[in-house]
Amino acid sequence: MKRGPGIAQTPLPKGFYASGVNSGVRAYRPDVGLIVSDSDMTAAGVFTQSEAKAAPVLWSHKLVPSKKVRAVITNSGQANAATGEVGIANNLLMVKATAAVVGCHPEEVLVASTGMIGVHLNVDLINKALPELAARVTNTAEHFANAILTTDLVPKTISTTLKLSTGEITITGIAKGSGMIHPNMATMLGYILTDAKLEAAAAHTFLKTAVDLSFNMVSVDGDTSTNDCAFLLANGASGVEVLTAEDVALFQATVTELSQLLAQAIARDGEGATKLIEVNLHGGDDVMLARKAARGLTVSPLFKCAIHGEDPNWGRILARLGAEGIPAAQLNQMTLKLQGEDIFVDGAPIVFDRDKVRGLLRSDTVLVEILFPNENHVPVVKAWGCDFSKKYVDINADYN
Amino acid sequence: MKRGPGIAQTPLPKGFYASGVNSGVRAYRPDVGLIVSDSDMTAAGVFTQSEAKAAPVLWSHKLVPSKKVRAVITNSGQANAATGEVGIANNLLMVKATAAVVGCHPEEVLVASTGMIGVHLNVDLINKALPELAARVTNTAEHFANAILTTDLVPKTISTTLKLSTGEITITGIAKGSGMIHPNMATMLGYILTDAKLEAAAAHTFLKTAVDLSFNMVSVDGDTSTNDCAFLLANGASGVEVLTAEDVALFQATVTELSQLLAQAIARDGEGATKLIEVNLHGGDDVMLARKAARGLTVSPLFKCAIHGEDPNWGRILARLGAEGIPAAQLNQMTLKLQGEDIFVDGAPIVFDRDKVRGLLRSDTVLVEILFPNENHVPVVKAWGCDFSKKYVDINADYN
Repeated sequence: MKRGPGIAQTPLPKGFYASGVNSGVRAYRPDVGLIVSDSDMTAAGVFTQSEAKAAPVLWSHKLVPSKKVRAVITNSGQANAATGEVGIANNLLMVKATAAVVGCHPEEVLVASTGMIGVHLNVDLINKALPELAARVTNTAEHFANAILTTDLVPKTISTTLKLSTGEITITGIAKGSGMIHPNMATMLGYILTDAKLEAAAAHTFLKTAVDLSFNMVSVDGDTSTNDCAFLLANGASGVEVLTAEDVALFQATVTELSQLLAQAIARDGEGATKLIEVNLHGGDDVMLARKAARGLTVSPLFKCAIHGEDPNWGRILARLGAEGIPAAQLNQMTLKLQGEDIFVDGAPIVFDRDKVRGLLRSDTVLVEILFPNENHVPVVKAWGCDFSKKYVDINADYN
Repeated sequence: MKRGPGIAQTPLPKGFYASGVNSGVRAYRPDVGLIVSDSDMTAAGVFTQSEAKAAPVLWSHKLVPSKKVRAVITNSGQANAATGEVGIANNLLMVKATAAVVGCHPEEVLVASTGMIGVHLNVDLINKALPELAARVTNTAEHFANAILTTDLVPKTISTTLKLSTGEITITGIAKGSGMIHPNMATMLGYILTDAKLEAAAAHTFLKTAVDLSFNMVSVDGDTSTNDCAFLLANGASGVEVLTAEDVALFQATVTELSQLLAQAIARDGEGATKLIEVNLHGGDDVMLARKAARGLTVSPLFKCAIHGEDPNWGRILARLGAEGIPAAQLNQMTLKLQGEDIFVDGAPIVFDRDKVRGLLRSDTVLVEILFPNENHVPVVKAWGCDFSKKYVDINADYN
């Protein structure tokens, strides 16, 4: 896969165009982005399960799955959450203005917003920027990816091509997220674009399956956002369908892998983070419990601080897994590895080379492996998180 | 109530004696403590619900409720958790040695341990210190309270007398806890001693009720320990029974209040904490959901950082309550107060005097009030936590 970010340009699939400009809501950073397609898009979406849903989430949720979406508008800096009826009205004003610029119906425009909760959308500034936004579209992802960032340090884009039975397609993913990251059914903001031809119901299944194994297994701080959403947008511009069982499996695997890479990029760019943590749990016979435990470990402040300090403190791992409800009988047979090195074997502490493991933890990526005896019988559960640094406190003790 | 710590001595109830000495497990701090009674104690206990239970928890859990307990031994520095069969054997060696020194059966000795997970108990050092420990008992709580501390900065003791229908009794509480504090059925370590006469079943009910409203509603970091336990020990030395309905209500209210004060002391002394946070949730019609939401707020890193920065960031409060599942219909009518000042009213942001509220947050105790419309019909739910500082990262990035 070709990875953003950096100098490299991330191509969009055929028939997709995107842009990002500064509307004046933020001082100088781009703060509004647009994705459009030459032709109608099939669209699926998954959204935050929080009861405190932002106005754009309520709007987009009603539209998908759909066979006829023409544009996605996204603003950053103002989340349009906890803004009541005014927020719903402002969201509609932005939708209508976008539809007018793109030349479609308002019901063909998806919206996502991210930023401060509880401030009203400066919709006049955003709407004034829409003609420029529409004029500046290109077939690369970077400008859009930049315009949707908040505390993120880097844009998150990825693109790949895929040979299906009847031809080649392109899939491009874009995401943002750095704080308030503990998605429940979707990440902060994620967009997966493809020029394959998809039915709406199939698009939803592909998206839901991928999100459960990626965005729903990443956590920066355990706080679930009001604005999480992820979209899969397919415009069919390649003329290629996902036809055979092999096509379906390949397409699903690719969408999932691409979503996982974006989820890892979010954790690596977590507020104050210096390390990406990947937890692999093998042999948990109750998959839901294994997912809960792996994810629980990624939010443990004690564990996250230990990894920050490059301290192989396996006691905190064991404590968290026990607290998450992994049965004592399994803990008593558990093996733990850090960076591939055994530190706890068959339910008991072992003498290990502490300096060596500390050295291995001096990496920007840390792998924690949790192995239960029946490791060959059930699929590995993967979760991602990041370490906890003083910088996180700096960023969040006074956020404006 | 007379509050420890400091110069003041916290009296034990009649017939109770306690001590604490250094056994050599730790460099110089007292690290082993003993509570004994002149006569048999009725004992109730509640314990961590973690599946990773320490050896002392497994032992004590089997003994209570009991009519015949004679001693409680507690060591700090080594948790005797994740130590397997060796840990269970070491625990029994410590129990037997304590029984020999006190002059009772091993089954009459409760144990609690706290400290590093996964290191074997230095039982020889501890057992050698037991004669000195037994010789040094006094009728005050301080030496024991000091001997059970780990990263705590202050000991936590409290004592009160109570006039029941047939006479006066004393209740004394002792607790420790600073990190890995998110108890599930009990705190790190809590001891409530009384010279009232209690049946074992009644003692369990009094303890369980108090713990659910106190230790189970306090969180420092959301990490549940392997060693949590709380005991209620009644030796009947006052000759006074808890007889009438009024006695029961008064005794329960006092045990609960005393447990809540100890829980608050734990949060205030949380690792790196500079502020105690009290969350009062009024009018949540589903009590279990209200408890989950209030407690969820106290573990939110974003909220804890905002309070640390004295930032009235109500958006994070709303986001967390929504994520915990408080229904949108209730959030849309919610009022939020910080330090008594309205900051969000009837489901909408209001203009408030930001400098004034920031000034009020410059306090070592912060009150967050969450009010739903039916606030008069259901009891207030209270939870306690602390702010999140860089010091927490310092303490936990390299813990030894």
